Amino acid sequence: MNVRHFHRHLQRLLVLALLLLAVPAATALDGRVEKQSFTLPHFTTESGITLKQVRFGYETYGKLNARRDNVVFIAHYFSGSSHAAGRYAEQDAAPGYWDAIIGAGKPIDTDKYFVVSADTLANLNTGDPRVITTGPASREPETGKPYGLGFPVVTPRDFVRVHKALLDTLGVTRLHAVAGPSGGSIQAMEWAVLYPDYVPRVVHAIGPGFRMPAYGVAMLDSWSAPIRLDANWHGGDYYGHPPPLAGLASALKLVRLNSQHFDGVEAQYGKRDTTAKQDPSARMTDQPAIVSALDALSRQRAVTIDANHFLYTSRAYQLFDVEQDLARIKAKILFIPSRSDLLFPPFLSQRAAEKFRAAGKQAEVFVLESESGHLAGLSDIAKAGEAIRRFLAQ
Amino acid sequence: MNVRHFHRHLQRLLVLALLLLAVPAATALDGRVEKQSFTLPHFTTESGITLKQVRFGYETYGKLNARRDNVVFIAHYFSGSSHAAGRYAEQDAAPGYWDAIIGAGKPIDTDKYFVVSADTLANLNTGDPRVITTGPASREPETGKPYGLGFPVVTPRDFVRVHKALLDTLGVTRLHAVAGPSGGSIQAMEWAVLYPDYVPRVVHAIGPGFRMPAYGVAMLDSWSAPIRLDANWHGGDYYGHPPPLAGLASALKLVRLNSQHFDGVEAQYGKRDTTAKQDPSARMTDQPAIVSALDALSRQRAVTIDANHFLYTSRAYQLFDVEQDLARIKAKILFIPSRSDLLFPPFLSQRAAEKFRAAGKQAEVFVLESESGHLAGLSDIAKAGEAIRRFLAQ
Repeated sequence: MNVRHFHRHLQRLLVLALLLLAVPAATALDGRVEKQSFTLPHFTTESGITLKQVRFGYETYGKLNARRDNVVFIAHYFSGSSHAAGRYAEQDAAPGYWDAIIGAGKPIDTDKYFVVSADTLANLNTGDPRVITTGPASREPETGKPYGLGFPVVTPRDFVRVHKALLDTLGVTRLHAVAGPSGGSIQAMEWAVLYPDYVPRVVHAIGPGFRMPAYGVAMLDSWSAPIRLDANWHGGDYYGHPPPLAGLASALKLVRLNSQHFDGVEAQYGKRDTTAKQDPSARMTDQPAIVSALDALSRQRAVTIDANHFLYTSRAYQLFDVEQDLARIKAKILFIPSRSDLLFPPFLSQRAAEKFRAAGKQAEVFVLESESGHLAGLSDIAKAGEAIRRFLAQ
Repeated sequence: MNVRHFHRHLQRLLVLALLLLAVPAATALDGRVEKQSFTLPHFTTESGITLKQVRFGYETYGKLNARRDNVVFIAHYFSGSSHAAGRYAEQDAAPGYWDAIIGAGKPIDTDKYFVVSADTLANLNTGDPRVITTGPASREPETGKPYGLGFPVVTPRDFVRVHKALLDTLGVTRLHAVAGPSGGSIQAMEWAVLYPDYVPRVVHAIGPGFRMPAYGVAMLDSWSAPIRLDANWHGGDYYGHPPPLAGLASALKLVRLNSQHFDGVEAQYGKRDTTAKQDPSARMTDQPAIVSALDALSRQRAVTIDANHFLYTSRAYQLFDVEQDLARIKAKILFIPSRSDLLFPPFLSQRAAEKFRAAGKQAEVFVLESESGHLAGLSDIAKAGEAIRRFLAQ
């Protein structure tokens, strides 16, 4: 390499370095995704408690444009995380949960949009080394001990406010859209209410509309109940002791069941398993095939989840209600219910869209045709791909 | 009163006495209902275990005709009992659960039909002095100790077989019909399969069709789970110790929730209770209004129910499957689903009816229009009254 070549090479490297600096959080390089973390020195919750050192994880895909306004924020679901798309490594078993619609050339096109996703406060997956969150399992900076139930009640609005601080730091001037499934759809709605001038588009997938219905409040309670019944829970004070895994597994089993539909479950578990060693017709301690299968899945999942984080997240969504704040919203909304959803049935989206239109605002409804129940918002989201692409282009 | 008058009076009394003897179990005298009991000295369950002294309660309304073939058997639901109609005393707060359609001149007309209803094996309501049942809380005749989980697994078919023994003893030659809501609809189907020549009509209200769907199997498991999580349950061996009331209350809360619909719950609990002392947005230990309300109801209900009986009844219904036995059925079937049922949604009845017709048999479907979910099969059954009256007259 001669001197001229060396200079040219250096120039290119400098240009590349400047480009990288201009895109402070772009991590979807060569299709690989990295977890990053952000720390808020202070954060005061809606319930009026000030927390110190609120740290959470985030991922980004695509590049922030010069005007810093091509951002699509992806809010995750109840038991999800900021891993919305891509893979950390080639050998990963699965990509992020909405990878079908997020990526180069995909409906949420990373060639156009800078996609940001972040872990919520009290994110469930404390046992996942790639999830970074602050919640009851975190150590209180002053005492060095886990908060436990001393952690304040948090709300979806709190989730959104800490994520907004990240976008502010990244220099984002305005979102292009905010989107999310289920719990993420709730956060998306809070974004639109809290920051009306910042949020022109909301994609509300498999969501409840503008508030948690009373029925949903009770369902969230029924998910939490088994944890509180587990003797190991100890009123939330189980850190340093065996955690309430049995109750947590029972909770997760109910979440999984409520997230599915009769037909999907029948297709998966309906056929009698003649090879089963369990005989529920002979022994009370034996279980039917579907129960054994759900038990195994739930026990496996429970070891990576913190029970108190589960309770706090349930409570957060129980408190969701922006029905009195509709007038503030300037965004147009794309509702994407699933036909077979038993958790947030499609009529909730239909009614919310009617209500929004009646207030003189813009709403579309795209129904996912699927037997997969609520989970269609993850597994079958590609069916709404073109509807999302068009909505983002409008 | 002279001698002639006295003789006439005596004659009338004798005729009346003979009439009463000809109607061995008529207890709906002057609109008052009495509980009676029946004991089977031996009964061998479908699981092959022989029980001694199987005792259960029953009620009857109306009179058995001379041909002893005007019987309508009413099978009760999961948490119900044989108290299907009438009142024990004038001051009773409520009559039996299907009183709206059972009685003189009502669709199940006690002027025409002799109505019999009986408590199932392992009936939940062991704390109700008017319920008589044999189950895990009963004392094993040989040891004098409660069976606990030593009681054999029982099935809806077992429920039916013990009740058939009662009808045989009453001399019933053939049913006019068998009817029941929910769990009762399952028993009704078992009657039609087990005794095809004995059962010409089935009223299958808010039922699952010909088998428990896999989704329903998992729901029944989710109801049982909180009981098994309660440390007081002790593997079912809690007699003489504090029973697992917290787990049982949690189970009953979930049954109640699953038995309702979003709209019914919203109408009842959706309005914010501004007088509430609980503030779930400030304290994790405080609960939303609907949760507090359901908790209070469930705790109250739990004290009259045995937790093991709950588990055995759940298991029984998990095992329901007569889909391979359709060809045996000679009855025609009236399906009465509820439009808003989330437990056994109306499509289950629609599909079962289609399947039954495809097998060359007679089925009708009458849909209850209601916001009350599964519970419409109790609260709104009068809406199906004329459909039932016509079906019984055909």
